[in-house]
Amino acid sequence: MKVTVLAGGVGGSRFLRGVRAAVRDGPDARITAIVNTGDDMWLAGLRIAPDLDTITYALAGVNDEERGWGRVGESARVAGELAEFGVGWPWFTLGDLDLGTHIARTAFLREGMPLSEATRRITARWSLGAGSAEVRLLPATDDEVETHVVTDQGELHFEEWWTRLRAGIPARRFVQTGVEAASPAPGVLEAIADADVVLLAPSNPVVSIGTILGIPGIRDAVAAAPAPVVGVAPIIGGAVVRGMADACLAAIGVETDAAAVARHYGARRRGAGAGLLDGWLVDDVDAAAADALAADGIPTRALPLRMRDEASSAAIARAALELALGT
Amino acid sequence: MKVTVLAGGVGGSRFLRGVRAAVRDGPDARITAIVNTGDDMWLAGLRIAPDLDTITYALAGVNDEERGWGRVGESARVAGELAEFGVGWPWFTLGDLDLGTHIARTAFLREGMPLSEATRRITARWSLGAGSAEVRLLPATDDEVETHVVTDQGELHFEEWWTRLRAGIPARRFVQTGVEAASPAPGVLEAIADADVVLLAPSNPVVSIGTILGIPGIRDAVAAAPAPVVGVAPIIGGAVVRGMADACLAAIGVETDAAAVARHYGARRRGAGAGLLDGWLVDDVDAAAADALAADGIPTRALPLRMRDEASSAAIARAALELALGT
Repeated sequence: MKVTVLAGGVGGSRFLRGVRAAVRDGPDARITAIVNTGDDMWLAGLRIAPDLDTITYALAGVNDEERGWGRVGESARVAGELAEFGVGWPWFTLGDLDLGTHIARTAFLREGMPLSEATRRITARWSLGAGSAEVRLLPATDDEVETHVVTDQGELHFEEWWTRLRAGIPARRFVQTGVEAASPAPGVLEAIADADVVLLAPSNPVVSIGTILGIPGIRDAVAAAPAPVVGVAPIIGGAVVRGMADACLAAIGVETDAAAVARHYGARRRGAGAGLLDGWLVDDVDAAAADALAADGIPTRALPLRMRDEASSAAIARAALELALGT
Repeated sequence: MKVTVLAGGVGGSRFLRGVRAAVRDGPDARITAIVNTGDDMWLAGLRIAPDLDTITYALAGVNDEERGWGRVGESARVAGELAEFGVGWPWFTLGDLDLGTHIARTAFLREGMPLSEATRRITARWSLGAGSAEVRLLPATDDEVETHVVTDQGELHFEEWWTRLRAGIPARRFVQTGVEAASPAPGVLEAIADADVVLLAPSNPVVSIGTILGIPGIRDAVAAAPAPVVGVAPIIGGAVVRGMADACLAAIGVETDAAAVARHYGARRRGAGAGLLDGWLVDDVDAAAADALAADGIPTRALPLRMRDEASSAAIARAALELALGT
């Protein structure tokens, strides 16, 4: 079974661990994660790719579960030096182990490798799969498309708005710099077209999934995918599960509500435009919205959506696959 | 007093500490070190400048005295990661604290700063001076001129021949890549022309001092300097004090001998060509060569030349200044 997942960082990585657990004991499973690269940036002369790294570390089992990001057993010896030199952002700590990844990626890119190949080289270090399941990570694009946030106080890189300001000043809109000239990374469109199931992880609908879909060709590929497309709500009971997606949704005029996000993605009607979803998962507390969504063409199932551990993530992934494949 | 010193890494840094100690209690002293950049290289996507860093750390007092290179209290957390990714050279360890310098330098260079300005930014973190003595470091050139070693088995970067092979295969000759188009870094020619004394540190005469002199304009500036030029022998009793300078001298047909190195630099005859030296210091064990060198136009003084600590280095520096200034 070929499962293609559009994913952001933390939520995406937990969901992908669930998907891997859900399919690992079945026959040959191939999971392709198409990963948001809008948070990527040049910092201290290094190319940082937060979502790719978060997913890599989580699937490799070397992530810091408690902190929610970075490597377990991390230290900050180099970061202390960079601060002394005034290099980098003081509020964005580059851990030593994490820096190994950034330096390796930057070295590969400087050699002329595209990001997708650098990612293949980096992830090859670990076994990201489990059981019968192979996992590969594809950046949405090899081009440098970065998410910027337009505020009343100027335009910022997304990471500055998100990490330094904690989304504390209103976003007027989000810009993907250079997106017009960008194209999907090699394998991305094929992974969508060849999939048995396409899943939208419970990631930020605006700056993670939305950014992936914004790369020219990807939204159309999902809309035209032969496989069913099922999404998982990142909103439970009108509140974000993690992060500050509400501040992002507000900027695009979408309510912080599981059903509103489903309608934002839209019901897929084959041959008829921009809707993406053949199915949607909401938390039990949002079960009341299921009938109305179904009436709008989005079959919806309710179940516990909090990903507390691999078992709860796997249950969500299984429900998504069942809804998609009608089993 | 303005003292300009041509210097390589380890020997250069010890000598510079001696010069600093020798002049720190006098009136305003300005020491300018013109530092070899031939060992510099791109490694793991980072610009490494071994001699600049060795001197910086030694003058800042943060160097590892015991090991002879790098930072004291160093660790290798990042290097372990890079090895896992197959990035860098396994035999060339990049310490964590040291990596902070490499990353900062690379970030500055990527911003478009020349190496001399990046060096100013990096060294500004510490106080390199002492007492009345100010110290500044100038790379010999801002251009990327790297020393390569031509061997029967091909051409290698100097660091690979020196550090990995321990100079174990014969060097046929040394090449300064791109040297024809290079020019001295801003301030270098002025520091030579304006100096009260020019000193050649007891560094490798071929790949440290020789590489500095090879940058177009520098040899001529030293030969034409209004100030006296005094060098310190890096050879004691026919043996190198540290490193493998004998393997370098062999490649250019110079005997591993204090007097031979003096003759290689040559006696300065004002207005008459390529000789550089107005004076030369040899170790007591080489005192017998002094008369012959003096007869050849190179006044030579013998004294203990092993730089065991700052006091012994300062004694050598004082002798060099005395020989230069006739005091």
